[in-house]
Amino acid sequence: MRAYRWDGSSLWLLDQRRLPAEEVWVRCVSAGEVASAIRAMIVRGAPLIGVAAAYGVALAAKEAAGGPFPDGAPAGDRLVSSLEQAAGTLKAARPTAVNLAWAVERVMRRLREALSQEPAGSRGAAATAATAVAPDALARIAEEEARAIASEDEASCWAIGEAGAPLMPEHGGVLTHCNTGALATAGIGTAAGILRRAVARGHSLRIYATETRPYLQGARLTAWELIRDGLDVTLITDNMAGYVMQQGFVQAVVVGADRIAANGDTANKVGTYALAVLAAAHGIPFYVAAPYSTVDLSVSSGAAIPIEERSPEEVTHLAGMPIAPPQVSALHPAFDVTPARLITAIVTDRGVLRPPYESSLARAAAVPPARPSERRVPSS
Amino acid sequence: MRAYRWDGSSLWLLDQRRLPAEEVWVRCVSAGEVASAIRAMIVRGAPLIGVAAAYGVALAAKEAAGGPFPDGAPAGDRLVSSLEQAAGTLKAARPTAVNLAWAVERVMRRLREALSQEPAGSRGAAATAATAVAPDALARIAEEEARAIASEDEASCWAIGEAGAPLMPEHGGVLTHCNTGALATAGIGTAAGILRRAVARGHSLRIYATETRPYLQGARLTAWELIRDGLDVTLITDNMAGYVMQQGFVQAVVVGADRIAANGDTANKVGTYALAVLAAAHGIPFYVAAPYSTVDLSVSSGAAIPIEERSPEEVTHLAGMPIAPPQVSALHPAFDVTPARLITAIVTDRGVLRPPYESSLARAAAVPPARPSERRVPSS
Repeated sequence: MRAYRWDGSSLWLLDQRRLPAEEVWVRCVSAGEVASAIRAMIVRGAPLIGVAAAYGVALAAKEAAGGPFPDGAPAGDRLVSSLEQAAGTLKAARPTAVNLAWAVERVMRRLREALSQEPAGSRGAAATAATAVAPDALARIAEEEARAIASEDEASCWAIGEAGAPLMPEHGGVLTHCNTGALATAGIGTAAGILRRAVARGHSLRIYATETRPYLQGARLTAWELIRDGLDVTLITDNMAGYVMQQGFVQAVVVGADRIAANGDTANKVGTYALAVLAAAHGIPFYVAAPYSTVDLSVSSGAAIPIEERSPEEVTHLAGMPIAPPQVSALHPAFDVTPARLITAIVTDRGVLRPPYESSLARAAAVPPARPSERRVPSS
Repeated sequence: MRAYRWDGSSLWLLDQRRLPAEEVWVRCVSAGEVASAIRAMIVRGAPLIGVAAAYGVALAAKEAAGGPFPDGAPAGDRLVSSLEQAAGTLKAARPTAVNLAWAVERVMRRLREALSQEPAGSRGAAATAATAVAPDALARIAEEEARAIASEDEASCWAIGEAGAPLMPEHGGVLTHCNTGALATAGIGTAAGILRRAVARGHSLRIYATETRPYLQGARLTAWELIRDGLDVTLITDNMAGYVMQQGFVQAVVVGADRIAANGDTANKVGTYALAVLAAAHGIPFYVAAPYSTVDLSVSSGAAIPIEERSPEEVTHLAGMPIAPPQVSALHPAFDVTPARLITAIVTDRGVLRPPYESSLARAAAVPPARPSERRVPSS
């Protein structure tokens, strides 16, 4: 299963707002359309947002080149400025997940490098040298880089799953939040990847999936994709997390991440922080799973991570139907920050990192990323 | 505002499942219909369930008497057994809230007393003496007792509100869970009564109402009735409780109770326990508000309180619409138990009780209940 498809000239996204009721694919032919799809949560999940945005830059490169692989080069300045504008739009689509900006910048860096290669005998600067690269070549470079990001994310999910599986109980309950699976990544998922690999290795796990209001990613997406893979999933409302821990049903908590600060503080779907407090109160290990691209060493602590405030209507309405009186105010922080002290370990594609995170996260920067090598998407 | 009406021969209940979208009243003319309404959560809230069930016994008394105030007495044995059966059905409607059994037993005690009064010159036992009381008198006794329970609950809410108001911050945020107001009681509410009285006394409060999945009592009922009274209500999903506490938005938590054990352990709407753990982790006082009739001294600790397990469909569906894949399992404990150590104080109509609760709850048994004296229903 994959939640996206690239057909060479457009990016197709599985509309995650409509799952599991129906499988509808949305076609994006421009960076602007990809940005809109990210904002509207047609596509979500930090790593998958990164992949989608990378293809968004590829679409911008095609667009800037005047269409899919035309002959003739546009003016260099115009090309550069339209690419930078598209990159800005994509990066601004959602503020919290760092993978978005990271993926966009990675493709842009490749494009800027290509643009700055001086043609023989020229002494031009990057912008004026732009015409030295054929537009179709530029689009192909962007597309290649997007494909590489996707393929590395797939490998990264597998590596996270393999690294994290031994941390799971042999027999027991594991609580997870939101969706961190094949619908949130280009592979088997991060936290969900750990669950998949643990079960594949013979662990007998009962997964407690929080429904994850207001978007119900747990009920709609995690339950759906893990049941398709034959996992044992029990759905709970978010406010039952304390109860299942108190009853001894849960031996580990594993969640994803949207951004990890240099000190290990982790921004993730709202509700994660409360789960970490509850896990600590019950002596249950609390694991964060994420590709290393989620780590933002430029941010020293969680206090500096921007938390996206979404529309209150997403809280007061469900599937367009009001569930509260019209006059009510509502909050809608899409994420919260879990302080590093509540995190037992951060499972990345570069290994299981332990506190103190300042040093373990910094050291991991030197570790090479997981290499794409085998089939690593969910079987379903 | 009241969520019930007694017209002398039937109990009308405001269908709380359909609020705030529409105000529909359901008519109950038998104890069985009242029990069904309680099971289906047409009426909910521990104190109000007690009031409804008391009127349910009154309906049973009328029914047993062969209709509303007929002439002629039925056979004593048949009368007694049909009353006991109705009482059993009512008490079994929901297992956790002790107010239900308490109210039914209170009316039944009055009826049994009346039935055991020996007619002059007779030496008969209770059952055989039943015919000594005219059926219409019996029905009137039950009705009077139900009315007394309602009126005492109204007074009790007022007393709780007055006792608890000084515990609220002068200026600040108060988080509450589920619905504990005029839709859960016969008066201004328990936890909501405290909020109402605090605001009436000049406290400047921002109420954070958790939406309270799966039934959304917070979003649908608490927001609705407190906004009608002009209070400042901000709705949050249940999983945002940690976030608002972490941000410093909340200076107190106040919740209701469905049953309080002799040691202070408190069963209340699922999610309450997690809020108590979060409050403790943030140094925020956590108050339970309930009429003393919610205290069950026959239960030594929370471990012995039966927790109602409701249908998983209430979690996997919302307003009849599936929100999860059809194959998924779900848990639905309607309540959880908060251990006494996490409760700062229990605010009752007999005063603010402090730990150790074994002694403060036992001592309060000797305090007379609040007396009905003035208008104590919400203004709206």
